[in-house]
Amino acid sequence: MEKIKKIAVMTSGGDAPGMNAAIRSVVRTCAYYSIACAGIYRGYEGLIEGDFIELTARSVNNIINKGGTILKSARSKEFRTKEGRQKAYEHLRKNKIDAMVVIGGDGSFTGAVVFNEEFNFPVIGIPGTIDNDIFGTSHTLGYDTALNTAVEAIDKIRDTASSHNRLFFVEVMGRDAGFIALNAGVGAGAEEILIPEEDLGLDRMLESLKKSRRAGKSSSIVVVAEGDKSGKNVYELAEYVEENLPEYEVRVSVLGHMQRGGSPSCFDRVLASRLGVKSVELLLDGQTNLMVGLKNNEVISTSIAEAIKGGHTINMELLRVSDIMTT
Amino acid sequence: MEKIKKIAVMTSGGDAPGMNAAIRSVVRTCAYYSIACAGIYRGYEGLIEGDFIELTARSVNNIINKGGTILKSARSKEFRTKEGRQKAYEHLRKNKIDAMVVIGGDGSFTGAVVFNEEFNFPVIGIPGTIDNDIFGTSHTLGYDTALNTAVEAIDKIRDTASSHNRLFFVEVMGRDAGFIALNAGVGAGAEEILIPEEDLGLDRMLESLKKSRRAGKSSSIVVVAEGDKSGKNVYELAEYVEENLPEYEVRVSVLGHMQRGGSPSCFDRVLASRLGVKSVELLLDGQTNLMVGLKNNEVISTSIAEAIKGGHTINMELLRVSDIMTT
Amino acid sequence: MEKIKKIAVMTSGGDAPGMNAAIRSVVRTCAYYSIACAGIYRGYEGLIEGDFIELTARSVNNIINKGGTILKSARSKEFRTKEGRQKAYEHLRKNKIDAMVVIGGDGSFTGAVVFNEEFNFPVIGIPGTIDNDIFGTSHTLGYDTALNTAVEAIDKIRDTASSHNRLFFVEVMGRDAGFIALNAGVGAGAEEILIPEEDLGLDRMLESLKKSRRAGKSSSIVVVAEGDKSGKNVYELAEYVEENLPEYEVRVSVLGHMQRGGSPSCFDRVLASRLGVKSVELLLDGQTNLMVGLKNNEVISTSIAEAIKGGHTINMELLRVSDIMTT
Amino acid sequence: MEKIKKIAVMTSGGDAPGMNAAIRSVVRTCAYYSIACAGIYRGYEGLIEGDFIELTARSVNNIINKGGTILKSARSKEFRTKEGRQKAYEHLRKNKIDAMVVIGGDGSFTGAVVFNEEFNFPVIGIPGTIDNDIFGTSHTLGYDTALNTAVEAIDKIRDTASSHNRLFFVEVMGRDAGFIALNAGVGAGAEEILIPEEDLGLDRMLESLKKSRRAGKSSSIVVVAEGDKSGKNVYELAEYVEENLPEYEVRVSVLGHMQRGGSPSCFDRVLASRLGVKSVELLLDGQTNLMVGLKNNEVISTSIAEAIKGGHTINMELLRVSDIMTT
Repeated sequence: MEKIKKIAVMTSGGDAPGMNAAIRSVVRTCAYYSIACAGIYRGYEGLIEGDFIELTARSVNNIINKGGTILKSARSKEFRTKEGRQKAYEHLRKNKIDAMVVIGGDGSFTGAVVFNEEFNFPVIGIPGTIDNDIFGTSHTLGYDTALNTAVEAIDKIRDTASSHNRLFFVEVMGRDAGFIALNAGVGAGAEEILIPEEDLGLDRMLESLKKSRRAGKSSSIVVVAEGDKSGKNVYELAEYVEENLPEYEVRVSVLGHMQRGGSPSCFDRVLASRLGVKSVELLLDGQTNLMVGLKNNEVISTSIAEAIKGGHTINMELLRVSDIMTT
Repeated sequence: MEKIKKIAVMTSGGDAPGMNAAIRSVVRTCAYYSIACAGIYRGYEGLIEGDFIELTARSVNNIINKGGTILKSARSKEFRTKEGRQKAYEHLRKNKIDAMVVIGGDGSFTGAVVFNEEFNFPVIGIPGTIDNDIFGTSHTLGYDTALNTAVEAIDKIRDTASSHNRLFFVEVMGRDAGFIALNAGVGAGAEEILIPEEDLGLDRMLESLKKSRRAGKSSSIVVVAEGDKSGKNVYELAEYVEENLPEYEVRVSVLGHMQRGGSPSCFDRVLASRLGVKSVELLLDGQTNLMVGLKNNEVISTSIAEAIKGGHTINMELLRVSDIMTT
Repeated sequence: MEKIKKIAVMTSGGDAPGMNAAIRSVVRTCAYYSIACAGIYRGYEGLIEGDFIELTARSVNNIINKGGTILKSARSKEFRTKEGRQKAYEHLRKNKIDAMVVIGGDGSFTGAVVFNEEFNFPVIGIPGTIDNDIFGTSHTLGYDTALNTAVEAIDKIRDTASSHNRLFFVEVMGRDAGFIALNAGVGAGAEEILIPEEDLGLDRMLESLKKSRRAGKSSSIVVVAEGDKSGKNVYELAEYVEENLPEYEVRVSVLGHMQRGGSPSCFDRVLASRLGVKSVELLLDGQTNLMVGLKNNEVISTSIAEAIKGGHTINMELLRVSDIMTT
Repeated sequence: MEKIKKIAVMTSGGDAPGMNAAIRSVVRTCAYYSIACAGIYRGYEGLIEGDFIELTARSVNNIINKGGTILKSARSKEFRTKEGRQKAYEHLRKNKIDAMVVIGGDGSFTGAVVFNEEFNFPVIGIPGTIDNDIFGTSHTLGYDTALNTAVEAIDKIRDTASSHNRLFFVEVMGRDAGFIALNAGVGAGAEEILIPEEDLGLDRMLESLKKSRRAGKSSSIVVVAEGDKSGKNVYELAEYVEENLPEYEVRVSVLGHMQRGGSPSCFDRVLASRLGVKSVELLLDGQTNLMVGLKNNEVISTSIAEAIKGGHTINMELLRVSDIMTT
């Protein structure tokens, strides 16, 4: 393999706080090693269109604390076609780009692997998604920030719930993964947490709410992940409880997209800085098809293929803690 | 009238940040003037049930910065009946309470006026509602805090909207009044603001969004008050735009009850402290049936009857500013 | 006077949250009226050096929520000389700038008046300073944000003060004006507030602290303005109390420059938007030498000369409220 | 050993966000296992004085999100004497307390070990300190929150630093440990970080600042830990730079005690909940002299004696990342 002289970086899929900090880190690490760096706009879509920008160490001043992504993000259908990827490859060649860092989630990594197979193009992945549903890292970029955003919002909801002795169903993000729901639920002191990984049964929830009221709690919060396994959405759950526990005055709040934004937490900024350095250093070291991540507070790397296949498992101990906390 | 020796305070209707600061102020002012103070739980409902608590200067330590209301709040149907009010009056007599401070909105004040008429019981109102829809004060308690909460949430939504070139419809509170929508909309730099006071027409919104895109804006935020006059709710508005402007990828976010909670802003804490002092001093001065409020940064008082009748009007200059800002 | 075709905007003196929102408003209002707009970097210093930038409606995207000032700010000695101002004027001519909006405080406005006198150059001032010490407006840009920043910091300090039964002296900004100290002090529930406008005497403070402890308060916060009239700085005050009230464990915290930064509050963003529109419209209307401001929630204008001369007075009612609150 | 029927919990030493969440967890876990729980006020001082309170599951409602500690904290000289500890033991016996959970840092744990040796009294430690300087856990309670507090404050300082092209020295907490300085420094994008663990030399700092200016950075932040090894305090460092790099306008900001307060982050709340459960379960399992902690996201336990002896080491990789980021 030839020496790498220019690296491109993109953000792909759902945006997450810390993506800008990761872009900054990739760009500054390139500058540190005196190689060039290009930004690709709008993920694979921009790659196919050749929508590039040259980035220097100064281009990324004052973005470490900004939510969103200055390179913007998108999902690309065209990149799933051979023609799309061919165009992408030609743009990379034309721009003399030797390797690529992709900041995104599972879907983005799958694209990267296919692309590497076809064109033998070096690529490293940085896990960026608020859902924390990626194998090979204890934390994805944006997850810690999203937890704080969710918990701060639920704290506010608790204020009004307590004032009116109400029960709130709060939906947080996480279509396939209950990480946000479980951790934000424990963090916010939720009386009940419903997650996609486990169907604890609606009866259990009713029992828990009854117990909570008997125990003298004046308000209750039930945190529900988008993809809860009960098969009911948050509004249906609220109705179900109102029907079965008429003593409760029930309200629903869907936190929604605000969980994706906001200035990243210190943890996410530091993680982004560390992963960005590692991703460039791996490429310079001749490595490819790896995802960088965190394990036991150490930066590690995993084969992207493995990362995609690998399942994430919810922390059963935390479910138990949640149960004890609602005593 | 006899000398007042004991004052009761309650919070009534929808809760608002700053209610605790106002309770603290009423209690401490009573202590300052060496008179007793009782708290009434759950507004008129608790009044009817005689659900009282003695409050001393120390009872209200460390609540100035807490959202919600330690006295809890409620809406009471029974207080609308003569029997309910009779019970309430008897509890007040039994507890030797000579006057009452009611922290709440229009509905709560109407109850207070009726009660005063029937029993000649001294009562002063403190305007506490995030909606700012009360005549006789430039600011209601909680309004400033709710604006900051809304703007911070929309800032986060803007992060993700910009990253994906999306259009977001964000619903804020305000069933009859567009104060939150208009101010939070201008504060968040919204491209369009829809309020109950004015039906600007859906065509105007489409035009504005087209203009915004032509002008090179990559994302757009439309802030919608709950009670928007267009007759469509926020989801229907989103659908309408998706049908008419297919180039837009549209998302909806309903901020909901988190706008009612949270630690009050400095403004709301100071306002609460000032209004609490004034309410007690008016009662000690033999006054009744007044609402305290702010005008030109001075604490003033208005007849409650007038406050209820008086209409609030939206700031047309601000609508114009909003229009200019979206140039 | 000829028709105005191009307006310049600068930020001068100490920076304040909301300055960017004001720049955005000036720029967008120019665009709305189809006139050109230039930004001047680093206040009068950049003006003398001709450090200008053309600003379009899109140049100011996504800055409404940013602290600091994208045009940067400075204090200029050279502008106090005739030669300096002559250079400044020539740069304005060369760049075909017909009028100027200066966002800053008293010092910046004095420069503007002198400049206008000498060159008959139209100029409008927007009051931007966290100190709120400008006559002719109830609120200066940045003041509301600084209050929230101070109160949030003092809330955190209260947490640790309460945990250890400690007394904290907290210094806030305000060399000549006690607005921040008085309002943040009331907002944070401070036991004592020391401001430049009034020397309440150190004995009074000792008495107040003794009373507070007797009343059973376990922690105390004394908020001190930088320019407190006691003649002692915050460290000397702390020592003085430790010597005279040895039962207190005393700590000092100087909030410092963080009070100047941060994302502006909704109030400051809306105020900035309104004042920016008004400043441009006044210039287009042929007016000059005015400062825009807020009075009774209406946008007004005052002669800059008057604004500079006029004294600001502290709200004595609020001092009294503070006293009652520490009962 | 007899069956444990009652557990006491205390907070000791410097307070930290998350201590209340840990108290809540200990209390609720006791309730879950149907054993009694007592709170000890003011750490070992309150223990010696027998200052106890019975705590039920409901006593700890709504404290998970509160900074500080409802049990208050203190450092005790008397507990270092045999007589003091004897008194403490007698109070425990009299109150029928069978075991104790101590939330605190190294100093508090040393006391616990001595006490256990003398009286064979079961004790478990929960690491609570913002400094993160305890062996046997990757994170101490309060550390994550303190990092976010520091980074948010430095973000604000950056706003004003950028506006004026200034250099700020920002002192953060950490007398013996540079964890906060290093992580908050990387998180805030500091140009230079000075920590107790390493004397990088003042020349290096000057070089770095010169490089930073040459690279076109307009503002700079140097984060300094309280106990920096250079031997100079933050004011002396600022003076030193002003003398050697006169082109810099230098300011100092000492973040101080606000770093100890504030609502805990989601991470700290979840960690506290997990550690509280484990501490009670270990006691019920007949264990003693252990400190609970986190390793690789799993709750583990370490011998307290080891935890005290064990050194903590700074992450050298992160120092390197910091260096690369300032390219």
